[in-house]
Amino acid sequence: MTTEKELQEALERARQAALRVLHQGRVATYIPELGKADPNLFAMSVHLLDGTKASIGDTDRSFSMQSVSKVFSLAAAMHAKCEDLFAKVSVEPSGDAFHSIVLLEEEEGMPRNPFVNAGAIAISNRLPGTTAKARFEYLRRFLGDMCGEHPPEMDSNVWLSETNTGHRNRALAHFMQHWQVIEDADGTIDTYFRQCAISVTAKSLARYGLFLANKGVDPLTEKVVISAEENKMLLALMTTCGLYDAVGQFAVDVGLPAKSGVSGGILAIVPGEMSIAAFGPALDGKGNSVGGIAALQSLSNELGLSLFN
Amino acid sequence: MTTEKELQEALERARQAALRVLHQGRVATYIPELGKADPNLFAMSVHLLDGTKASIGDTDRSFSMQSVSKVFSLAAAMHAKCEDLFAKVSVEPSGDAFHSIVLLEEEEGMPRNPFVNAGAIAISNRLPGTTAKARFEYLRRFLGDMCGEHPPEMDSNVWLSETNTGHRNRALAHFMQHWQVIEDADGTIDTYFRQCAISVTAKSLARYGLFLANKGVDPLTEKVVISAEENKMLLALMTTCGLYDAVGQFAVDVGLPAKSGVSGGILAIVPGEMSIAAFGPALDGKGNSVGGIAALQSLSNELGLSLFN
Amino acid sequence: MTTEKELQEALERARQAALRVLHQGRVATYIPELGKADPNLFAMSVHLLDGTKASIGDTDRSFSMQSVSKVFSLAAAMHAKCEDLFAKVSVEPSGDAFHSIVLLEEEEGMPRNPFVNAGAIAISNRLPGTTAKARFEYLRRFLGDMCGEHPPEMDSNVWLSETNTGHRNRALAHFMQHWQVIEDADGTIDTYFRQCAISVTAKSLARYGLFLANKGVDPLTEKVVISAEENKMLLALMTTCGLYDAVGQFAVDVGLPAKSGVSGGILAIVPGEMSIAAFGPALDGKGNSVGGIAALQSLSNELGLSLFN
Amino acid sequence: MTTEKELQEALERARQAALRVLHQGRVATYIPELGKADPNLFAMSVHLLDGTKASIGDTDRSFSMQSVSKVFSLAAAMHAKCEDLFAKVSVEPSGDAFHSIVLLEEEEGMPRNPFVNAGAIAISNRLPGTTAKARFEYLRRFLGDMCGEHPPEMDSNVWLSETNTGHRNRALAHFMQHWQVIEDADGTIDTYFRQCAISVTAKSLARYGLFLANKGVDPLTEKVVISAEENKMLLALMTTCGLYDAVGQFAVDVGLPAKSGVSGGILAIVPGEMSIAAFGPALDGKGNSVGGIAALQSLSNELGLSLFN
Repeated sequence: MTTEKELQEALERARQAALRVLHQGRVATYIPELGKADPNLFAMSVHLLDGTKASIGDTDRSFSMQSVSKVFSLAAAMHAKCEDLFAKVSVEPSGDAFHSIVLLEEEEGMPRNPFVNAGAIAISNRLPGTTAKARFEYLRRFLGDMCGEHPPEMDSNVWLSETNTGHRNRALAHFMQHWQVIEDADGTIDTYFRQCAISVTAKSLARYGLFLANKGVDPLTEKVVISAEENKMLLALMTTCGLYDAVGQFAVDVGLPAKSGVSGGILAIVPGEMSIAAFGPALDGKGNSVGGIAALQSLSNELGLSLFN
Repeated sequence: MTTEKELQEALERARQAALRVLHQGRVATYIPELGKADPNLFAMSVHLLDGTKASIGDTDRSFSMQSVSKVFSLAAAMHAKCEDLFAKVSVEPSGDAFHSIVLLEEEEGMPRNPFVNAGAIAISNRLPGTTAKARFEYLRRFLGDMCGEHPPEMDSNVWLSETNTGHRNRALAHFMQHWQVIEDADGTIDTYFRQCAISVTAKSLARYGLFLANKGVDPLTEKVVISAEENKMLLALMTTCGLYDAVGQFAVDVGLPAKSGVSGGILAIVPGEMSIAAFGPALDGKGNSVGGIAALQSLSNELGLSLFN
Repeated sequence: MTTEKELQEALERARQAALRVLHQGRVATYIPELGKADPNLFAMSVHLLDGTKASIGDTDRSFSMQSVSKVFSLAAAMHAKCEDLFAKVSVEPSGDAFHSIVLLEEEEGMPRNPFVNAGAIAISNRLPGTTAKARFEYLRRFLGDMCGEHPPEMDSNVWLSETNTGHRNRALAHFMQHWQVIEDADGTIDTYFRQCAISVTAKSLARYGLFLANKGVDPLTEKVVISAEENKMLLALMTTCGLYDAVGQFAVDVGLPAKSGVSGGILAIVPGEMSIAAFGPALDGKGNSVGGIAALQSLSNELGLSLFN
Repeated sequence: MTTEKELQEALERARQAALRVLHQGRVATYIPELGKADPNLFAMSVHLLDGTKASIGDTDRSFSMQSVSKVFSLAAAMHAKCEDLFAKVSVEPSGDAFHSIVLLEEEEGMPRNPFVNAGAIAISNRLPGTTAKARFEYLRRFLGDMCGEHPPEMDSNVWLSETNTGHRNRALAHFMQHWQVIEDADGTIDTYFRQCAISVTAKSLARYGLFLANKGVDPLTEKVVISAEENKMLLALMTTCGLYDAVGQFAVDVGLPAKSGVSGGILAIVPGEMSIAAFGPALDGKGNSVGGIAALQSLSNELGLSLFN
């Protein structure tokens, strides 16, 4: 077991590793609002199952979840006991970019996994509620309830920015409606844009992810978020599909289930031990936080966290 | 820790699980010699790090390694300290079938990972030796030496059968020679056909894999096969790329690094604990042993082996 | 030169050829309203440059233009002297299905040619007018004016049917908006759905196409519809891109510039001689009228019309 | 009808048009021997059906046929009355590069048309003869016999150069053997490399193509080379598939059936009128002679040759 002091020292070295590479990355600009982020920001937070916490860097700086939200919307849909959640979404790595429409055509509208954009849109469509906003509210309350806290807020500027520019995701939604994978492209895409705009900090993100390190049960509130079986599935999916088309390299370098987002957040899980959130808006060519990945690699090596050791 | 008795009981239940599904599979026929296999065969062997062994079923029945050999040829190339092994082979899941040539064209001859056929051919090309046979002999001796045993034999009928019919793999080799990923398509493909024809049993396969469960060191001979870093890489690659286009479902259902072959063999590793070999020539639609997967899923659930628990 | 009597006899034999194959086809059902068509209908009309006309079959039966409208919207955009019409639309055959989105991703939103759906949507977006309806009205009036007749009507049922089900085309439009090929996906798609619903008969369709056989000038009203250069381009595009993915076989069998639509219409042009319209709602597997193609092949052979003789 | 004087003047202007653009092109280098060509060379020859000839530029300079040979090997296979020539080769434009292997995988080894490399290799495999050399000799003699001349020679340096470097074409051949489209990849590819190396001049190439302008009959020897039906098919295929992925633009700009090769030759046919050969080794980005295309466009416009006028 790692002591708090060892953890804090390992975090410090992780931050050093991140700072060395931040200059190699660039903030995402395809959503204009994200382009305003400061590429020099970096934060990392670790929550252990017993409540021990450690943080470093800009941990109170808020950012939008973006694709990290895909983990929580899937967990929320599992929590809501949605039936046949995987009848129209596969569970295989895509081998293509996260927003690709090519595979969707080859496979008749069925997304490769719930973490490519198309798959996440299809899952959001399944959240309880008949309107975009109701489905989104379900997700927000799900996050708050499991931690016994206020639900997170949505960053309206990010949401508006995605609404105005997210034509590619809209194309994915209409394409899936053509194949009857979803029913209402316009409504579904709004749920999706809203969930991507959920505002978190490195601290709160690590807190939200804690149930994933504890077989689906939040260890502090003791609430059963999802079943142990569902939790195993989520971690397996994060491992094989969580980092866009860098999932193989991440498995080699870090060796943990994780999910990244274009705002620069990464959530990584050490089963039975801890939840880790990294944040750094400077991204590499594959859309992952350069600082986040460097810090996670350092931490994983220092503490021997890789599943493949 | 699992006792020998628990292990044997779990193997019995795994066999039951396998027998229930064998009828759903079919033996591979694209290599004519493989088409002669008995679809009702099934075997499973487990080797623990301390030398404890347990087996069930047709564990003395020999079969050709086929794609399971890709793990060992990569390990042998690492062992031989080949430089820049990954300069012309990526480490990402392909999202396509194992023998696809499509991605190879998009990515200018660079295979997606060392476990798709193209990648494995490129790695075989790097084994020490200037002829096909010399490279193959290096691999055979590598396997024997690490266990302190005789090197395994090659099944000449399988080798001839592949030589006569392996036009698709020959196409992959020539395509890579076009892109200067390999130098000598004809020689390289012969090394590859030979390694696929290496003859093993479930018992010997589990024995060969033992170093993978022990950070790269064979626990019985104490020989350093590959470094701990290289071993971590191999296990990560097996997890994200080891089961053709069923890697995501396998991670969900079994949750272990593994590599399958079309003769019906699967090698799975529990890091720090054990090496498992399953064998059953009846394959599912994605080319994986139906019995082998069912047995591994049963064993993983019974003993709580999944990395994602 | 063909006499009227020879023409009428050739039409009769063309009809016989069509009737023999009608049973092989099926009416399109992906637009529900089209599914109501009678698969036994067949009509063919020929207009010569000197005003001679000949017709056979159900030539007063009206049908919606569907993809045949793509020829006229491109002509109308040329007529309106739209600048840089081909800055964001290529002129090459696609090798893929007419509604494919795959090439659109590979080529960053730039449609392969103006006759695949994506290309036609991009062209419709360029028609004069700031609203969907204004652009559509321009096209209707263009058709009426050039012939000195009333503009054709739109079939509201077909338009509504496409509006309710055209999710795939909507996906194409949003995808192109992402790549800034068009500005307003929702408005553009409405123009497109409207133009596809323009109602014609075999007679009126052959009449509308007459300028294409006469270097861009309507031979009866003597109005210059487009320039001789633009007309040459249209005929070249019809020859290489006009029959979906059956363009090669059609060039072999018929050898004329042509454009087909899923309602069963085909417009074919013999440069310097005649305009031919065929109609038969029973389609082959590639979306072309089986009767229409058989009749055109018969007529082309009888009268030696192929450009490749 | 064009007089000899008009023809010569038009050729002079065509040459001017070519010389203006030669600097934009580059000689092919992927076959090393072709890289030695002088990019400033240019030649054009025209043969009329009545025996009238006109030439300009370096018309005695020899070059290897490369892909232009695909027209003649298909004609030779038709001449030899090979059965079911199109049972395993389609007749549609590919929409992809000429040497692409992607479509071949999607379509289970069946080439899109006889003018992409895979299709031409499959056709060469059908020439009479049981060895590579015998099939090649059949083609050579076919060319000589139809004109009553000596058969053309093969450029051994070019043949050797392709033999040493043509790994991509070898991959295509092995891939087709996998799908049983051809039987003997190694032998077939040698026939293909030999035919590509057939040595011609602009004059001799225009001479060989004369039957194509005359419904399949050589107008000077009066030998029936292929049937009128087969000739129509060849011209249709040249129009829809003859210029790699520039076939649409060529139809717009020149409007004639044509076939180009990477050595810089282009053969174009005006049905019922003339055979035209252009030569210029400087190629555009799509592998077509820049000078050849400019000259053909000039000639087509001057003399009103386009089929789409």
